[in-house]
Amino acid sequence: MTKTNLIAELTAALSADALLSEEQFAVLDPVVTPENTHGLLAVAPRNLEDIVGLFQVCRATGTALIPQGGRTGLAGAATGTGAEILCLGHKMPRRIVIDPVSRTAEVSANTTLADLEQAARAKGLTAGIDIAARDSATIGGMISTNAGGMEAFRNGTMRQRVLGLQAVLPDGTILNDLAHVRKCNEGYDVKQLLIGGEGTLGIITAATLQLLPEPPVADTFLLALPDAAAALVVMQALQSNPQLQLLRAEAMWRDFAQENAKHQAQNPLQTLPDAALYVIYEVHCPNGPSEDMVFATLEQQFETGLILDAIAAQTGQQANDIWALREDTLTLFKFFPHAEWFDISIPLAHLDSHVKRVETRVAALDPALRIHVLGHLGDGNLHYTVCHPEPLTPALVKGIKLAVLDGLKEIGGSFSAEHGIGIEKRVALNQYGDAGKLAIMRAIKQALDPENICNPGKVV
Amino acid sequence: MTKTNLIAELTAALSADALLSEEQFAVLDPVVTPENTHGLLAVAPRNLEDIVGLFQVCRATGTALIPQGGRTGLAGAATGTGAEILCLGHKMPRRIVIDPVSRTAEVSANTTLADLEQAARAKGLTAGIDIAARDSATIGGMISTNAGGMEAFRNGTMRQRVLGLQAVLPDGTILNDLAHVRKCNEGYDVKQLLIGGEGTLGIITAATLQLLPEPPVADTFLLALPDAAAALVVMQALQSNPQLQLLRAEAMWRDFAQENAKHQAQNPLQTLPDAALYVIYEVHCPNGPSEDMVFATLEQQFETGLILDAIAAQTGQQANDIWALREDTLTLFKFFPHAEWFDISIPLAHLDSHVKRVETRVAALDPALRIHVLGHLGDGNLHYTVCHPEPLTPALVKGIKLAVLDGLKEIGGSFSAEHGIGIEKRVALNQYGDAGKLAIMRAIKQALDPENICNPGKVV
Repeated sequence: MTKTNLIAELTAALSADALLSEEQFAVLDPVVTPENTHGLLAVAPRNLEDIVGLFQVCRATGTALIPQGGRTGLAGAATGTGAEILCLGHKMPRRIVIDPVSRTAEVSANTTLADLEQAARAKGLTAGIDIAARDSATIGGMISTNAGGMEAFRNGTMRQRVLGLQAVLPDGTILNDLAHVRKCNEGYDVKQLLIGGEGTLGIITAATLQLLPEPPVADTFLLALPDAAAALVVMQALQSNPQLQLLRAEAMWRDFAQENAKHQAQNPLQTLPDAALYVIYEVHCPNGPSEDMVFATLEQQFETGLILDAIAAQTGQQANDIWALREDTLTLFKFFPHAEWFDISIPLAHLDSHVKRVETRVAALDPALRIHVLGHLGDGNLHYTVCHPEPLTPALVKGIKLAVLDGLKEIGGSFSAEHGIGIEKRVALNQYGDAGKLAIMRAIKQALDPENICNPGKVV
Repeated sequence: MTKTNLIAELTAALSADALLSEEQFAVLDPVVTPENTHGLLAVAPRNLEDIVGLFQVCRATGTALIPQGGRTGLAGAATGTGAEILCLGHKMPRRIVIDPVSRTAEVSANTTLADLEQAARAKGLTAGIDIAARDSATIGGMISTNAGGMEAFRNGTMRQRVLGLQAVLPDGTILNDLAHVRKCNEGYDVKQLLIGGEGTLGIITAATLQLLPEPPVADTFLLALPDAAAALVVMQALQSNPQLQLLRAEAMWRDFAQENAKHQAQNPLQTLPDAALYVIYEVHCPNGPSEDMVFATLEQQFETGLILDAIAAQTGQQANDIWALREDTLTLFKFFPHAEWFDISIPLAHLDSHVKRVETRVAALDPALRIHVLGHLGDGNLHYTVCHPEPLTPALVKGIKLAVLDGLKEIGGSFSAEHGIGIEKRVALNQYGDAGKLAIMRAIKQALDPENICNPGKVV
């Protein structure tokens, strides 16, 4: 099949302007990685029939297809090798319908999280999920990667927000399961395979989502703590006080926090003592200002030294400065370009021991290595960055991976928390994934995409 | 294959006392339906190897196997025809491990909900799900049917409580996916197929569950309301007041409530006016007694007639009397034995119109028909019982089914909310289920159980 023939097939099968011209394709923004636009052709279907037709051409010609959302994924699930058709969502009909009584949203997959959130807020509701890429990430992409973020410890990940799904499978089957209800037991919940399936089992075209009441205005506290065990005691004390609502709990270990603070316009750590851990707690108090209530709740922890010191943000600017320390992770990456990074989940009871064990293991590999740890305290999702002044050798990379990942499964953790497998974690999946689960995954992929045309080389 | 040969095969393949004797089999309690013990033989494996061996014998001999939990399911997913091997869980090793820091439980599938809840409460936690069959229903069974109940509108169904799963598939593959973390994206989330799979894709042997903080003590209110729209306004007013926590919201329409009240020892309706709808709201107020706060919150609804009248239970006994009206559904069934009953989900915005439309349709079929409606207001899961003084004719049953179920899918509802498909709703699944979804379900069943030995005739 020559490219010319493929273009002819696609032109015959799809709506008039679905196939992008070379000029249009050339200006496509790859967003997080250049490989996101490494395709043979790009198409933007106009409707479900176009997608069915597209898959038909792919099957008939043995051409691979890569579904793409906002191209903000961090595991490489949307990358190409130059031989694939990239399938873009931007020409599909846009739809955001909020039902404020049922507290549901029905949206087209090409809706960005920011657009959904804006529509939900207008009705006093929220999507209940938030990630940094909110302006570009699409709902279809967030479902495909089962996105997580800072609110997952309260609201679950994207999987828990999805009530229904519409998708086209590689064989042309249309899954039309757009339920608007929480309780729906109509046989196997097959949409769950597409949630977190990273585009390897089909193309998500629409979804229904469970919305939540708009979150209340919150106050920001930054605490210096001796360890994660103390941070969890504080978290559970705040959660146990019915006069308070804990909305976020974000943790930064010493090296990340202190190193990153140096490069921030304002350094929120300057009035705090040196500490192994700094945690931002975002708290709402229905009965007025939360500061007194929070400090009263934590009185015992202050007295017993479980809290070294704390700051309550007094202004919006001060709260922003505190959050900048957590959210600006890119600045530090520039100063430590030679790094291996991880997105892992650790059961809360094992947070301290895991961080300490990795520190010991990494130090034994090379004393010049440094570890930056930050993450979501509430669900134990930590991002480790292990960096070196010099480029990492393959042997060192291998050693670092072993140091961070070995033993995680045994304690009930995960080597892959919120970013997915994509191409980045395929080796780790084969190494640390459950063998039985992998066999079942392959059987499902074989059953639903026997020609292996849908995002091949990713995940399975 | 004669029964004698099958016994010989099983005896050779399994642990010494795994095969039940005829005497042991004869005294097995079928619980909800006699068909639950209609099997050829019953086995109780002692370990994973027994289950692998059992499936091997089943495949080799073409014998069907029925996984059973507490035999409390209401859709017939555990029933036999006399030709199958019943697989019981009671001899598998028992395990309940609560991690109070991570707030997780790891349990064997044969754990009852009541036992799990007791262990969780001892650590200040709860399973976050409650169903009437709590003393007999097993976690394995509840996962297989994706059980719902009264707390699902806050905590989701069983699917949202499961973090990890261990199961044996018909081909002997062991899925060992016992994660203890919320964020875990390790490829296709295949455990989701077993959740709600009703034992047709394998035997669940263990699970890890997300626990929640123990729920606070609550006060009980019974409100007389003009319609479901009013009940939803009240519900959302209670949910929107950050000084209150709404824990339960259970609705009873006029005919069910008034008819059932006649047969209760205490009639909680006697001081309330005649109303189209009665709703029990269970509320917690962190700042002391909730009565004043609840009535202050609902002042506007009282003034505008959205609430006709209300009772706040003053004693535990009064609360029990109110709850008996909702929970004792069996008494009324005795007086109306000729009935067709339904377990459906309706998007909240459509509750009123659905109830009214069904009333009109049913009245047109036969004016002697009566409809009893009750259910979970928070998630729109209603149980309709359509009853007649005389035995229902097949034509009338068909008409009633159409009256209740037709048009539900179009508004985003479901003909099958919390009890599953089993054998009871297979016809409805083919009639109202999405054709694309059914095709995918069949492909998955074929891929994972090609010999169709695992609970055949159920669901797909």
